[in-house]
Amino acid sequence: METPVSVLGFGSAAGKKEDEGPLSGLFDYISDDNTFGEKTWEKSESRMQQIALSKALANAELDPKKIDLIFSGDLLNQCIGSVFGLREFNIPFIGLYGACSTMAEGIALSCIAIDGGFAEKCAAITSSHFCSAERQFRLPLEYGGQRPQSAQWTATASGAVILGNSEKAPVITHVTIGTIVDMGINDANNMGAAMAPAAADTIKRFFTDTSLTAQDIDLVLTGDLGEQGSSILCELLYREGIDIRQKHNDCGLIIFDRESQDVHSGGSGCGCSAAVLCAHILPRLCDGNLKKVLFVATGALMSPTSQQQGETIPGIAHAVLFQSR
Amino acid sequence: METPVSVLGFGSAAGKKEDEGPLSGLFDYISDDNTFGEKTWEKSESRMQQIALSKALANAELDPKKIDLIFSGDLLNQCIGSVFGLREFNIPFIGLYGACSTMAEGIALSCIAIDGGFAEKCAAITSSHFCSAERQFRLPLEYGGQRPQSAQWTATASGAVILGNSEKAPVITHVTIGTIVDMGINDANNMGAAMAPAAADTIKRFFTDTSLTAQDIDLVLTGDLGEQGSSILCELLYREGIDIRQKHNDCGLIIFDRESQDVHSGGSGCGCSAAVLCAHILPRLCDGNLKKVLFVATGALMSPTSQQQGETIPGIAHAVLFQSR
Repeated sequence: METPVSVLGFGSAAGKKEDEGPLSGLFDYISDDNTFGEKTWEKSESRMQQIALSKALANAELDPKKIDLIFSGDLLNQCIGSVFGLREFNIPFIGLYGACSTMAEGIALSCIAIDGGFAEKCAAITSSHFCSAERQFRLPLEYGGQRPQSAQWTATASGAVILGNSEKAPVITHVTIGTIVDMGINDANNMGAAMAPAAADTIKRFFTDTSLTAQDIDLVLTGDLGEQGSSILCELLYREGIDIRQKHNDCGLIIFDRESQDVHSGGSGCGCSAAVLCAHILPRLCDGNLKKVLFVATGALMSPTSQQQGETIPGIAHAVLFQSR
Repeated sequence: METPVSVLGFGSAAGKKEDEGPLSGLFDYISDDNTFGEKTWEKSESRMQQIALSKALANAELDPKKIDLIFSGDLLNQCIGSVFGLREFNIPFIGLYGACSTMAEGIALSCIAIDGGFAEKCAAITSSHFCSAERQFRLPLEYGGQRPQSAQWTATASGAVILGNSEKAPVITHVTIGTIVDMGINDANNMGAAMAPAAADTIKRFFTDTSLTAQDIDLVLTGDLGEQGSSILCELLYREGIDIRQKHNDCGLIIFDRESQDVHSGGSGCGCSAAVLCAHILPRLCDGNLKKVLFVATGALMSPTSQQQGETIPGIAHAVLFQSR
């Protein structure tokens, strides 16, 4: 960014299981039955986005009319979580599909629009819901299918960030847009392995482009690689001469306790990285406990249809560098 | 745009029925059996995007390495048409979901990235395929369901535009990002009616923001409102004091001959507006036969699931003003 773009506000919403994990008490809104008061899981997900954006607007002390552009998307077919959650705000809307990379994608595009002079204030939002994702991508919940240890648990969560210009708040100084990377993984129960090469590619390009090193960063925070994907990422980068092992964490490993919460390889979903960012990381950038965080949301660009037709799972990752004041 | 963004190249691909319509001979590539050499309709759609982008790159005389960002999306669940069609180009990728508004959305974001100084050259691409759309959104083709007269026919088509800076080519001077507009239409066989209010809203805002009038424009080109949606749009704007009746046409009415091709209210799909733009409109802007074209791609932001759950059909429309040199 020519002029660093500021974080004016942020908000989050999550389900019961998420509030029972390590971030208990940090989310702005919890639905104890995961329905968020709605009759279908898809409508619950929409309501979650609406709540997260409302909380972010309140945190930023802004009226929806002050927001020039919303960037949003989610995992549901045709992104209905975003559309039906956000239509009432009456804000110009840019629909995204970046799978679980959406939060970084939306923040990066918001920064481009603001620093380019096309918008004063933007919002980036995304969500995922365990129940809507399971029935759309995998099996009906009632089936009670078993999950291998490499599988991840889709977080029921949403996060929203308001971006603009301010002299106080944490800022975004750099963004790196990811390239689709497909290393031939085709196991939909091992998304971390499918996404790790894309994360490695983006992080490497980020360090090359900025001349920064892992030593300059407090935290390299990937979106939802989980346990298996995280170890692959660190190994891939280590082989390239980039050692992030002491600096890396993953939102999928932060949001749940793998020992006690039976989530196997960790959390996943667009909402996982969005809610960890908004409930846990941005507050620590605000109070100065973190100085420089490279947020790298990771997406698996597949569908049940592409899987059934024998396709591999391409990954993508977008990176955003947050800095405290 | 502070500096108008130039159209450096464009390309299109289409199916047999599209090549039998009024634009016969204008598309860069035709698949006579609509398979584009692939074994599934989804893979056919991916191949179509790959071909359209390759044709656009050839037309612009550019190597893929010269493109800084791709903006793409489509109608398929999780946008697999775009992902699998474009992964081999190895270009930083921004996935969009704007339903049939995607072409204008991608062009608008490309302009923002280029004029903001974040990219030198971008590509905007989208597609739709009659056979993949029918089985995903409606019924298997084998069922042979009847269609009401308000229904539209999803075009099997793709279009790609390369944008950057040049002193020769047609330029984009203004873009207007649309707001989600939902007037309560819930008939999935009348998408034109669902999208027309969004188009009216965006066009009205465009004229207000730019102080231009319909008299200043050669052509107001909507994406896929079809016969019914087009008449609703003209009526809605007329009531607001904006008379576009002599200036308006719709890509869904241009791509097919409604009398002889049995398409009822007209063509639709992301690829409809993209291919009409690239095969028919941009060449006429290049040769000066058209001077000012307001391209307004229109999207219906619904899914089969949202329909089954009793939701209405929100619409969206993004506008891009093309001008010849």
